[in-house]
Order: sequence, then structure tokens, then C-alpha cells
Amino acid sequence: MMKVAILGHGTVGSGVAEVLTSHAESIARRAKEEIEIQYILDIRDFPDSPLHDRFTKDFNQILQDPEVKIVAEVMGGLHPAFDYVKACLENGKSVVTSNKELVAAKGAELLKIAQKNNLNFLFEASVGGGIPIIRPISQCLAANEVLEIAGILNGTTNFILTKMIRESMTFEDALALAQKLGYAERNPAADIEGHDACRKICILASLAFGKHVYPEWVHTEGITKVTLSDVEYADAWGGVIKLIGSVKHTDNGKIMIMVAPMMIPRESQLANVDDVFNGILVRGDETGDVVFYGKGAGKLPTASAVVADIIDCVKHVKARKYLYWDDATADYVEDYRKNETLMYVRATAEDCDALFDKADALFGGVSRLSRFDAPENELAFYTEKLMSEAVIEEKLQQLQQMGAQVDMTIRIADL
Amino acid sequence: MMKVAILGHGTVGSGVAEVLTSHAESIARRAKEEIEIQYILDIRDFPDSPLHDRFTKDFNQILQDPEVKIVAEVMGGLHPAFDYVKACLENGKSVVTSNKELVAAKGAELLKIAQKNNLNFLFEASVGGGIPIIRPISQCLAANEVLEIAGILNGTTNFILTKMIRESMTFEDALALAQKLGYAERNPAADIEGHDACRKICILASLAFGKHVYPEWVHTEGITKVTLSDVEYADAWGGVIKLIGSVKHTDNGKIMIMVAPMMIPRESQLANVDDVFNGILVRGDETGDVVFYGKGAGKLPTASAVVADIIDCVKHVKARKYLYWDDATADYVEDYRKNETLMYVRATAEDCDALFDKADALFGGVSRLSRFDAPENELAFYTEKLMSEAVIEEKLQQLQQMGAQVDMTIRIADL
Repeated sequence: MMKVAILGHGTVGSGVAEVLTSHAESIARRAKEEIEIQYILDIRDFPDSPLHDRFTKDFNQILQDPEVKIVAEVMGGLHPAFDYVKACLENGKSVVTSNKELVAAKGAELLKIAQKNNLNFLFEASVGGGIPIIRPISQCLAANEVLEIAGILNGTTNFILTKMIRESMTFEDALALAQKLGYAERNPAADIEGHDACRKICILASLAFGKHVYPEWVHTEGITKVTLSDVEYADAWGGVIKLIGSVKHTDNGKIMIMVAPMMIPRESQLANVDDVFNGILVRGDETGDVVFYGKGAGKLPTASAVVADIIDCVKHVKARKYLYWDDATADYVEDYRKNETLMYVRATAEDCDALFDKADALFGGVSRLSRFDAPENELAFYTEKLMSEAVIEEKLQQLQQMGAQVDMTIRIADL
Repeated sequence: MMKVAILGHGTVGSGVAEVLTSHAESIARRAKEEIEIQYILDIRDFPDSPLHDRFTKDFNQILQDPEVKIVAEVMGGLHPAFDYVKACLENGKSVVTSNKELVAAKGAELLKIAQKNNLNFLFEASVGGGIPIIRPISQCLAANEVLEIAGILNGTTNFILTKMIRESMTFEDALALAQKLGYAERNPAADIEGHDACRKICILASLAFGKHVYPEWVHTEGITKVTLSDVEYADAWGGVIKLIGSVKHTDNGKIMIMVAPMMIPRESQLANVDDVFNGILVRGDETGDVVFYGKGAGKLPTASAVVADIIDCVKHVKARKYLYWDDATADYVEDYRKNETLMYVRATAEDCDALFDKADALFGGVSRLSRFDAPENELAFYTEKLMSEAVIEEKLQQLQQMGAQVDMTIRIADL
């Protein structure tokens, strides 16, 4: 009998309790041991819960109970989650978590404590909800060098973009619908500004390349500036706009990492990842492209990933499970302006033909895009030669000095 | 220093040697121990190989070397692979294999021997080449009940169907091209008759549902009868034809498993799995649909999966890794004629309108499909109500008795 504690009884936490209860028999079979919920920590009361006698408001009760060997942290947020997790790892308890904010901000530190104390710190549910991705990267791809990871990592923004693409809904209407359906928080900034996707690509980058990447080092753009006209131009170009978190090795031992809306071709395996689904592409030197697809959030998918980690802890309770990365300094992340890319540009000008000619000369070749009913003073094009973002930026400023107004730029990704 | 032996130096075997050599440093870091190739077994000579001094023609030399703790079986075929693997497991050596024929035919027996001797028997590379699928099913989805697995499991047939769909190439021409490109064997029967896909869905079914499924129990149809007209009708219906291996639980504790060409809707995550790629959909009760996509074959993807298993063996050399299923009897597999499905039908009749009316009455509603330049005596339709295959078969025989000739039937899958 293995006794566990669950920190938090919100969406994911109640899901974890539900899965552990409803699947108790098959879980015991797989873990080779019964798993019992000893405590659930929450500041609220749940008198009607069938587990009402397990609730506590006192974290120290859990910390000081030597019978509790595994703690599931599903509170979210950095504090007090970090303090609790740290205390658990320092007191002989393995921890599993779905908390991407915690792993992205404190992963290296917590992994180090876990290693020192020969405990597990697992976080499969922190990226991709119920999609297995942490383990496949760390284990199955162990014989590969990962070259690049790119993913649709946030279901809310993907839902919004899908509505814009498929139903020509405006960003504002799609966001309102997402909120109505419960996909977006009342304060949707973490999603639509790209911060949630940023945390997840940081975790994947840390795992794949072995050094911690902190979210504040990552150039992050959200989707709030994407308009229906951009969606139409993307369609004319032959693809769709998706919010992509991407990271790749650079030749100088650094990484190029960013989160931004990107145009990807319709044939890309990520182009058909729609609605609240997530898709993660892992490019290995031996395997080529491998893609993982599924529900990236939601109570039960996320809870089942947490429970899978709990099962893994039970099976490895006496042997630390190998997940590890080192700490790093900010210069490990390459300046995003050195990123070489093709760029889509939407601009306003009095004389679009003249602006096109100027752009064509400046960028050494651009292709014009058209859409139905575009205003006469709107020009959209994409560059045809790879250039660094710094150079593109410089050339766009030259265009502005000629009287054009650059309204939008979107990277074109080779995915 | 961990010493391994590789049985076979064909495509996969030479890839394993190559990956172990080229990635030696990172592999040692991940395995926490250096891995050295002590022997390579092959009846041929490879005097120019940088590893030429490791070659042996004598399996017993490997078997009797107590230093060899891990053996990679990458010979393929059932004999002598089975005898060698069994001997290794009985003599204290863990085994990893890419051999789907072996696992599908002898998995339960070999897993039992491995369990008895506290050794690992791993086979990530046997399904999906470089796509991680065995581990994700057994570990990450441990907290789920798997409801259904459906996959495009054979790259050769998928390449042929893709050429038929995208370039209107005939089956014969596409097969010839696949052979020219080295995707298909000179004797392509195992691929085009569905046997290769059958072995893989048997392995996935055994793993997901805990009982061994032998290929000879599985209703298996290949793609040799699929014509370009069927491809066109599938397009008119709104989808594509793919060779699908599928398995699901039935209410009576059995499984419904088969391999057959199926029509799947264009929106399905499997519809865009093209060329030699594989895609595997795992439907869990908590996670919903999770899809794994990548190169299902090829020297280096497959080799890297074998090497990942070797690394896992090194890390678990003293603790058996938990992969297991029981043996079963043939009545565990439900009669495929009890499968409830919608069906596409292509028929020849003198009076197509009359035949359509009869079919419509017989099946309680059918929808007609059309294609450009269809012969006047060709009728294609699909049934609108779920019926067992036995009932559909019976009704089709009634149609034949009325003078029609049923030329092709293809199941319509809900994927």
C-alpha cells in the first residue's frame, strides 16, 4: 500500500483523485501496489466529496507524515507550490506535478534536490496535458540528438486561431467564445500573450538540450495582433497561422528559442492540429520528424498524466528515475534577432505597386499575396530569401522611411 | 562498461552498430555507462567494417560469454531468431529486438521467460520504427483504460496508397515505384497483403489489453484489390483509403481486431499520414485521442529505437523492466463478422438506378457516390446505418441474386 498526498483540489487535483479512485484496480495492477490517497490539501472545504475525510488545510501534516512517500502538486502557480515541493523533496517524498510555471521557473533547482536525495521529480503533465511527451523525449529518443522541437503548446490560442481560420471569426469574438466555453480564463493574458506556451517550450528545451531555459530569456509574442486579413493571406500563401513554440540548437552551442505566431504550410503535420488540441514535433538526427498529438489540457487528460507519473514513482520508489538538466546562464539563449527566417509582411501604403517594387529590391525578391476585397492601400508579401530578423527589421524600417506603414509581420516556419 | 552483442548485420543491424558508434558519448551519458559492441553475429564477412574484429559466425560464442549482458536481435524472421533470443533469456542476457514477426508469434512465451529470469525483453522498434509507441502505451497511458488503437502501421502500403490518392497512379505502378525506391521487397506479399501491419497491431493489442493476440487469429485484408475508382469515390465521400490495423474492446471481454483498407474522413488525424510515414491513434478513456506520427521504418529510425531499448536495459540491468502480457486462446478474438460498421460498396449492374433503389431498401438507406467518367454500369454507394458485417454480407448476396455484381467493399471507419 503506497500512500500519496494531493496538493490542491481544483480542476486537475479533483481529476487526479477521480482517476485514482475510478481506476484503482488497474492502477494497482500496473503499479504492482495499491495506491491510497492519504491527504488532499486545499484551503476550501469539500463536505460532499466521497474523500471528505482525507482533506486537510495543514501542509505540515502531510510533510510530517512519514507514510506519505509521494506527493502530487497540482495547485498551480509559483507560491506556495515551490515551497511545498521543495520541502517535500527535502523530506524524503517524491513529487509529481502538472505545474508548468513551477517546472519552467524552478526545474533545475528542484531536479538537483531530487537527485541529491535520490527521489523522483516528475512532470509529464506539465506539457501537452495527456499527450506523452516528456518520457518519449527523455527515453525513446535517447539514442538521438534532438535537432529541433516545435509545437502547438497552448490549446486556448489554438482554439481561437482555428475559429479565425475555419469560421472567419474575429480574434475578439473567438476569445469571447473560448471564455464562454471555459477554454480561456477571464484574464486570458497568460494564454493569448504566449506565456503559457513559453513555459512549455522552456521545459521541452531544458529536457532535450540539458540546460535550464528560463521563460524570461525567451522572445515571446502572442496572437493578439493577428487579424482575419492575415489569416486570409496565409491561406493564399498555402498555409495557416499557428502559435508555435520552437527551439533548436545553433552551431555555437547555444539555442534559438522563441514563441510567436508563425505561418506553416498546409502539408505540415502541425497544420491540422485544430481546436484545443496540441501537437508537438520532435526532429531527431536519426528518427527524423516524430509528432505527438492530443488534448493538451483538460481535467482528465492532465490528471491521467499525473497519475501515470505517480505509478512510475511507485515502481521506482527506491531508485531515482533519471530526469535531469543543469542550470544555465542567460547567454545560453541566442539573440532571436539572429534567427534566419522568411517573413510575411502586411503594410499600408498610398502606392502599393511602388512599395512592392521597393520591397522586392530591398529583400532581393518578394512574392505578393492577395485576398478578396483588400483595401487598395494594403500590401501583403513574403520574403523569398532567408535573412536574419535584425536585417529584416532594418529593411522594414527603410520601407517605413519611404512612407509605408508596416502593420504586421509573421515568421514563415519550415515545419 | 556494458558489453552488448548484435545478432544480424543487415539494414537495422548495421544501423544499430552505426548509432552506437556515432553517438557513443551522448549514449554513455544517458545510460550512465559506456556501451561497447563485443560481438556482431552474421554469416557474412565484413572485412571493411571498422568493427570487423567484432564479427563472429558462432552464436554460442556470444551465448557463453558471461560479459555480454545485453543482446540486440535484429536478424528478423522467426528462426533462428526465436531460438537465439530464448537461449539468451535463459542464460542471463536481456534482449532487445526490432523483430515484429518474433514478438507477434512468441511474445507471451519470451516475456514469461524474461520475467522468470528477472531480465528485460524490450521491442520498441518492432512497431512504428522510430516512433515511440510501446513505452507511451505501457507507461504514460498507465492511468487510462485503452479503448481502441488504430494505426497506419505499414509504410510500403501507405506509400502506394498515397501515390494512388495524390497522383492517380495505379496500384501496379505505385508498387513498382515502391520496389524501385527500395520501400518494397521484391516479394511484397507481407506488406501488400497486410501481414506486416497485422503483426504490429497484434503487438499493440497484446500490450494494451494484456493478452497475446496471434496474427493467425486476425482477419487481414491487404490493398491489392483497391482501385483508382475506389480512391475517387473515397474522395467524393470526403476522405481517403488507408490500410488500417485496429483493435478495440468488446463488451463481452473479447477484442475486435482486424487489418483492412478503410475509408477515413479527411479531418481524421490519420488522413494526412502520407508516404512511408506511420501514424498510430490511441483512444484512452481519460486522455481521449492521442496520435503518434513519424517514420515507421528505415535503417536509422529503427536502429535508434533499438539503441534506446539498449540504453533502457543498461539503466535497468538489475531490475526487470515491466512489460508483460499473458497468453490467450483463439476465442479471445471476436468473430470479425460481428463488427458493426458502415460500408462502401462498388458494384456492376445493367440498371444502376434500379440497383440503387434495391440497395436503399435493403440497407435502410444508402447514399450514392459519383466520379468523373464512371462507366454507366458502375454503381457506388455507402450504407448509412451501422450493421454487422455478417448482415451486410447477407444483404450484398441478395443484391447479387438480383443480378448485380459486387466488385468491392471497404469499411468506413470512425477515426
